[in-house]
This record gives sequence, structure tokens and C-alpha cells, in this order.
Amino acid sequence: MLPFFELLATDAKTGARAGVLHTDHGDIPTPIFMPVGTQATVKTMTPEQLEEIAAAVILANTYHLYLRPGSETVAAAGGIHRYMSWRRPVLTDSGGYQFFSLASLNKISEEGVAFRSHLDGSKHFLQPEDVVRIQSEIGADLIMPLDECMPYPSEAEAAAVSTARTSRWAARCKEAHSELNEQYGYRQFLFGIVQGATYPDLRRQSAAELVDLDMPGYSIGGLAVGEPKQEMLDLTELSAGLLPPERPRYLMGVGFPEDLIRCVARGVDMFDCVMPTRNARKGTLFTRAGRLVVKNATFMRDFEPVDANCACPCCSRFSRAYLRHLIKTGEGLGMTLASIHNLYFYLDLMRSMREAILEGRFEEFQREFFAGYTMASD
Amino acid sequence: MLPFFELLATDAKTGARAGVLHTDHGDIPTPIFMPVGTQATVKTMTPEQLEEIAAAVILANTYHLYLRPGSETVAAAGGIHRYMSWRRPVLTDSGGYQFFSLASLNKISEEGVAFRSHLDGSKHFLQPEDVVRIQSEIGADLIMPLDECMPYPSEAEAAAVSTARTSRWAARCKEAHSELNEQYGYRQFLFGIVQGATYPDLRRQSAAELVDLDMPGYSIGGLAVGEPKQEMLDLTELSAGLLPPERPRYLMGVGFPEDLIRCVARGVDMFDCVMPTRNARKGTLFTRAGRLVVKNATFMRDFEPVDANCACPCCSRFSRAYLRHLIKTGEGLGMTLASIHNLYFYLDLMRSMREAILEGRFEEFQREFFAGYTMASD
Repeated sequence: MLPFFELLATDAKTGARAGVLHTDHGDIPTPIFMPVGTQATVKTMTPEQLEEIAAAVILANTYHLYLRPGSETVAAAGGIHRYMSWRRPVLTDSGGYQFFSLASLNKISEEGVAFRSHLDGSKHFLQPEDVVRIQSEIGADLIMPLDECMPYPSEAEAAAVSTARTSRWAARCKEAHSELNEQYGYRQFLFGIVQGATYPDLRRQSAAELVDLDMPGYSIGGLAVGEPKQEMLDLTELSAGLLPPERPRYLMGVGFPEDLIRCVARGVDMFDCVMPTRNARKGTLFTRAGRLVVKNATFMRDFEPVDANCACPCCSRFSRAYLRHLIKTGEGLGMTLASIHNLYFYLDLMRSMREAILEGRFEEFQREFFAGYTMASD
Repeated sequence: MLPFFELLATDAKTGARAGVLHTDHGDIPTPIFMPVGTQATVKTMTPEQLEEIAAAVILANTYHLYLRPGSETVAAAGGIHRYMSWRRPVLTDSGGYQFFSLASLNKISEEGVAFRSHLDGSKHFLQPEDVVRIQSEIGADLIMPLDECMPYPSEAEAAAVSTARTSRWAARCKEAHSELNEQYGYRQFLFGIVQGATYPDLRRQSAAELVDLDMPGYSIGGLAVGEPKQEMLDLTELSAGLLPPERPRYLMGVGFPEDLIRCVARGVDMFDCVMPTRNARKGTLFTRAGRLVVKNATFMRDFEPVDANCACPCCSRFSRAYLRHLIKTGEGLGMTLASIHNLYFYLDLMRSMREAILEGRFEEFQREFFAGYTMASD
């Protein structure tokens, strides 16, 4: 059997890495961007459309699926791949972020998380072991331990307590995971999540404790929650550098195209973010030149594609003018086409980075990209 | 050049007809159902998805497109086919129905219609000639004259005044149409619309006046606006029987699957209705057995397709359980998949009827359909 992760190249001048994740639902080339499919659907897109833009893996959310339709329902379908008709790999996040951000009256203790559903107010109590079991039932290929994502800013003491608990929860998750049978006959890899808020010492402690658990992959959590961009980049670099090179590194919830490049340069292999799809639904399109707000009146009779150099199914067939009309009139097709374009852009950006890394010209790629790209903050 | 309409077969026992409409954007087999694409998009579906289910022609709405993005914008794109990237025929309705139902402060005079936009309250005044010019600019293959669709019930006197005016407007539309150049190089066929509310004499008068105008096709308007079902069927039969057999007949805004069959039996060739798509978005699916409300709890773990005998892209790949989940969580994909299924069902029903007519077994088809189908009113 192939190893879970193969590291194929590390850029000589940066920390950028190219590799491949071998899962039982197919290979995932890294660096990779994973489209977010919270409710077992990448919003407004069919699985065919995701296949067409070569999405290699998608994300689904444990909190949402636990509440609706319930992990037992997904299990009754034979797992999430069958449930949503998606043949390629799936990653589920633990729901940790949603337990604390979306649910109400949540209460954390050493034992686990008590919360009320944001849907119907029903009471729930989940232990780390439950979260692993739920993800196992959902049937993701890549699963996450229960963790606590601290807000920004956090007091050092609270962050220390939380970070230590997240490590203890990770150990409990690993133990629970080792006792589960492979109910679907394919492997489900449990990651560890490095926390530590914005405190380098806590990041070091967290990474060390998780590395001790010898997980097949590591996530970097608790970033992109409001801290300054430079702090995010520094903490990502620090965290990635603390992790074993032979394991994949997943930076959770990041980010803008420029962030992906800068974090690949800092040794990150995997990303997810609602950025491309959420922006798409509001009519903000990403191109190599920067962002294009297609609702603007200037595009009313602009019959060029969103990006003349883009090979995506949206740019191949539809104009800025038509996309603007669809977004302005609130038509679902506008959201679909814009999502297709933005995800294609993100996935293509990752492919370009991977090629550049394999060909030893990542720094050049990075320089060229930033020379042509106007950032949101510029 | 081929004639616009070829009548291929008329059922010996009913009035059912099979034929083909030749347009410069392709042939339309009749009887046909035309998916409604009000804002130059069939809601939540891509043109590819419409092609995949073999939609031969779609509808767009003049009132909506006149207001947004404006017919000049569609013209600047090179017409609606290019604007929305739809290569097959398009029919535009005149907007008459929307002028009276959606716009506010509308006022009808012999000259035309004054109204305020439902979007921004802006004032507009359109004469029959304007409506033809706007549709010509939009670039539809099949265009409709300005008509007045009377509400149900209507007083005989008001209906008589309105019906006579609709005929005079049709003559003005024909005159205006004959003076327009073919700005896109393809033919645009102007229909006549038979009105007359629920008064057989007015229907006869309307049909006679329109037949005098020698239009290439005739619509039957003003039905399915609240009158009893039997009255709709009788008035459809009456109206169709008054029209020349060598011209296509289009019953506007009808209807349920059972209505399509009954009206084909009464000599109708063309239909449009929001029924399949609007119902789809709310989770009501059509099958040969009747309607299926996929939101019902009974489908939560029903992993069968919507219809095991259906070859549509939704039934080929997705379960009732998943569709229910998507509709319950308000996900756009649920609306897309349900729309694909319902439109496929409608289009397939029309294909089956056409085959049956051509093979001389329409009555048998009709009998078999109703034996297996539970109607909404049953």
C-alpha cells in the first residue's frame, strides 16, 4: 500500500513543497485547495461541475451534518460519497469552530462541548470521542479531532488552558479512532490540529504534543480569525516548521489567493476557505489581475469573459455582462457560474504553484504573480 | 427554405398533432414544452444542463428583459442567444401579462400601456409597435404581439372591448413587424394571440380576426387564470378548432402534466409554464405516478432516485434522501437537481406523446398515462 503522503519536492529557496496524498478515493496532489461543501454540497454546484474543474477533494462540516441530516442518515446511505454522489476524497472538519461560533449557549469542559443547535435550540453534548465517531460514520477520508479555536485576541492564560486541552482531546480522539472499525472498508486518516492562539510558545508546545501522537497529518488552526496578516503568516511559518516534513500540513480557513501563495512558501500543503465560493455568490470574481466586482455598472455591456486567459467553463461561454445581469437579478445561475470561475481560479493557482515547485521555479512564480496582481488591501 | 411549420400527423381519434417548427436556430419537434427562462435564464440551470435534457426552445420575458438589462443591452451582445449563450430557439412573450400583473399603476388605452416598473417605480409607456421592436432587439425567434390577458371572471362587456383591442393591437404589431429589418440575419416569427376570456363568441371573433391577419402561428391566451379546469379545456378545444391546421398553436401558461396531455388531445402544439421549475424549487417532483413532495420526512433515508424509471441526470446520480436534505437546507443544488428532473419529465412526456401520435396510438398512451398517474386534484 502506498504511504498516505509522499513529499515529491521542497523548494530550495522557500519552504514550498509539492507532494501527493494517497487516499482510497483517489490521489490528492499538493499543494491543494479544498472547496468547502458545508452541508454535503459545494453551494450551487453539481458534483459534475466540481469534477469538470478538477476538484480533487472537498470539505464537509461535521457540526452541520450532525444536525442535518444526522450522521446515521449519511451512514445509512453508505457514507458521504454515496450520499452526495461524490467519488473523490472528502475531508470533514470537527465542527469545533461551529460549536463555538454558530451554536448558542455552548459550554466547554474537559469532558467535551455542550451546546444548543442553532436550528431548533435542541441540547447536545459531544465528547472528543463522539466527534471522531460521527466523522467516521459520515465517512470522510480525512477527519479532524475536536479542537477549540480561540478568538483573537485571547489572553495568554486562557489560551494556555485551551491549547493544553486541545492536545488532551487530540489524544482521546486518536485513542477513539484506533478502536473504530473501518466501517466502509476504506481508510480514514485522523489529523492533529496545532493551536496556541498568537503565542509562539503555545504553538511550540501544541505542535510538540501533537507530534508526539504521531498523526498522519497536521492541521494549523486558530489563524485567520482577525489577527494582523503578518502575524498570521509568521505563526503559520512557525507552526509549519515545527511539524515533521514527511507529514502533510493543512492551514485551516485560509484565505485570499495571495495568502495561499505566501503560505505555500511557508510550507503549507492544504487549504480550505469559503472565500472563493462566498465571494462568487456576491459577484466578486478572482483573476490573475486581482478582484473584479462584476456588479459594477461598467460591466453592463462588457461582453468579454471574466478573464480572457481563463479556461474555466464560465469564461469559455459567458460574458461579464451576462454574469452581472444574473447577479443583479439574484438568479441562481449567476452564483453557479461565479463559483465555477472562482474555484477554477483557486484550483488552477494551486496547480501552477505545484508545477513551479516541481520545476524549481517557485520564487519566480511568486514574483510574477505579485507583479500582476492587485491585492484587496492595495 | 423549409416552411416554418410542418404538420406531420394528426391523430385519427383525437385532435392531437405531431409536427416540427423550423427556425434558424434549429428545429422544434411538436408537441413541445418550452421551459420558462424569464430573466434570460431558466432558473438555477446552466445552458449545458438544458441541452443535456434536450430542451429544444426556451422562453424569455419581454417585460423583465426590457427593464433589466434593457433590450439595447441584449442587442449590444448580438441578441439573446449570444447574451445568454443559448444556441437553440428562443420565444419571448410580449410582457402583456406582466404589464397587468406585476407592474403598478398600469393604464391601458387604445394607444398602448402605461405602467410603472415594479423594480424602481419608473414610468413607461409602450405601444404595440414598441413591444415588437423590443422583442426584435432582444432577438427571439418566436415573438408575441402585445395583448391584454383578462382576469377571471371578467364581465362580458369589458371582455368584448379588450378582445377587440387585442385584435387591433395584433394588426399594428404585424404592420410594425413587417417594417423591421432582420437585424440579426435570422427570421423572427410573430404570432397572433387569441383572447376572448371565457366567452365562446369572443373567442370566435378573436380567432377570426387573427386568422385574417394570416400569422405564421397562433397563441391561445387568457386561460389558466383561475377558471374551472373543464372550462379551460373546452375553451382550448374551441380556440384550437378555430385556427388553421397548417399553423402551430401555442397554449400560453399551461400547465400540469395532465393538462398538457388533455390539451395536446385538443390540438395544441406548444406549451410553456413555470409549473415544473417553480415546483422543483419548492421540492415538488413530477413522476409518471404523480407528484412527490420530497421534503416529507418519509424520504429522509429513501436512497432510491426520485423515479427509478427516469433517465434524467438527477435520477441517474442522486437519491430522494439527498434531494430532501438539499431542499430542507435551502441549498441551490437541490433546486437545480429538482428543476432538471421536472423539466426532463415534462420534455420526456412531450416526446412520448409525439411518438404515440406518429405511431397512431395517442389514445392508448393517454389511457395508460392516466391509469398510472395520480392527479393533484385526486
